[in-house]
Amino acid sequence: MKQASKEFKEVVLIGAGNLSTHLGKNLYKKGYKISQVFSKSKDSANTLSKVLKAEPITDFSRIKKDSDFYFICLKDDLISKSIKKIPTLSGIVIHTSGSVNLNVLSSKFENCGVLYPIQTFNKHIKKLSFSNIPLCIEANNEFSYSSIKELANHLSENVRDINSKQRQTIHLAAVFSCNFVNYLFEIADNLLKKEKIDISLLYPLIEQTIAKIKTNAPAEVQTGPAVRNDIKTIEEHLKLLENEKKYQEIYRLLTENIINSHQK
Amino acid sequence: MKQASKEFKEVVLIGAGNLSTHLGKNLYKKGYKISQVFSKSKDSANTLSKVLKAEPITDFSRIKKDSDFYFICLKDDLISKSIKKIPTLSGIVIHTSGSVNLNVLSSKFENCGVLYPIQTFNKHIKKLSFSNIPLCIEANNEFSYSSIKELANHLSENVRDINSKQRQTIHLAAVFSCNFVNYLFEIADNLLKKEKIDISLLYPLIEQTIAKIKTNAPAEVQTGPAVRNDIKTIEEHLKLLENEKKYQEIYRLLTENIINSHQK
Repeated sequence: MKQASKEFKEVVLIGAGNLSTHLGKNLYKKGYKISQVFSKSKDSANTLSKVLKAEPITDFSRIKKDSDFYFICLKDDLISKSIKKIPTLSGIVIHTSGSVNLNVLSSKFENCGVLYPIQTFNKHIKKLSFSNIPLCIEANNEFSYSSIKELANHLSENVRDINSKQRQTIHLAAVFSCNFVNYLFEIADNLLKKEKIDISLLYPLIEQTIAKIKTNAPAEVQTGPAVRNDIKTIEEHLKLLENEKKYQEIYRLLTENIINSHQK
Repeated sequence: MKQASKEFKEVVLIGAGNLSTHLGKNLYKKGYKISQVFSKSKDSANTLSKVLKAEPITDFSRIKKDSDFYFICLKDDLISKSIKKIPTLSGIVIHTSGSVNLNVLSSKFENCGVLYPIQTFNKHIKKLSFSNIPLCIEANNEFSYSSIKELANHLSENVRDINSKQRQTIHLAAVFSCNFVNYLFEIADNLLKKEKIDISLLYPLIEQTIAKIKTNAPAEVQTGPAVRNDIKTIEEHLKLLENEKKYQEIYRLLTENIINSHQK
């Protein structure tokens, strides 16, 4: 076993954003040695390196060659470009993206894989334990797979074997149920602000909305004017949105779809 | 005080659906006497009456005249029609709708008001305490107001004075952040099912999505391909939805709006 002789496995983080920060902190806490943090921004590399007791680097050529794991934690659209600049490595190169295929890595690296945490990360959250975050893993060979699995099991109790096609669908579903949901909260927030009402008034409703889908399929617990086909209320709502044409368009489209999908 | 001489205040429930059931159970538990349950469906009237030890009635003319409160818990589009059939009453007539104006009641009843619980009710939920549900109240006179407020305070720790215009906006915001959110969960569920993946894999993500908006405005914590303007991922997602034109249309519209509203 490649890592057997080492006491702590060594990790290089490529990227110093939200995901890299949370992943790095969780690995560090579990005893992994974070040897380097790469970022194009010197400040970002320095800041995260300090926390993780790592070496900050801003040049791809300075990535050390003998690390066990290399985590590429970059925005999806930067991954391909960055791979070209990363030197050839024998350690396991892992990306953390929901939408990028494994073959982007396997065309260059001998040992590679994916560790995609199904979670939303942002700078407002200071601490985020990985222990209950589902980690979707995939690898290009048995050695990479068993190594990534071992690391993933150290981080989380919910590790799943997910291929690139499944992962892409999970990522798409996550966009609907997290990113788009958050945008609907933004709309609600903006509407309420005009009446000087705080969105906290909706928290119990929002919590119940989540609680419901844990015991029933979402399609079974749909409520509201659309599923009741309550045309009068729908028309009143559209009228209320007369000065918010963009919100009106979203209201109309989602309502139409709920009506159609629930028509018996 | 009208009710001062009575030991338990008396309530007639008009309607025997989800809201009426939960409201009735909560009132009953707090010591209110539920004297009658009206429903056009004999079965529904009987079922709920049994639970609440009330008299089941199916004819508006049988509504007793000397009750303290009359709760109209009917679908929004049935409220106006039903009011015409309800006899003149001196007790306080209350509707529970987010979208119906108080004047629908005050044009007929001497004492009336609104008690709108900001919550989603459905038959799958057996027990639902009102204690942390925000109750929006409004009334046509001081007597009705103080009576409704007293009753509301018995049910919930979160009672708010909300006028009809504000209530309409709250209801609209609730449609965005509950009904439409649930529909996005339905889409996610359907996409995942095709890859034989259970939506429970998204629970931690969904919980975090809610947790985030409790500490920050939704607009501040938007994540995902749209807010990053990650065209490549967006295009891949649209391609994945090639055979789901309706979902593709929703993806496109919400993405466009997120991009536009977050452009600096």
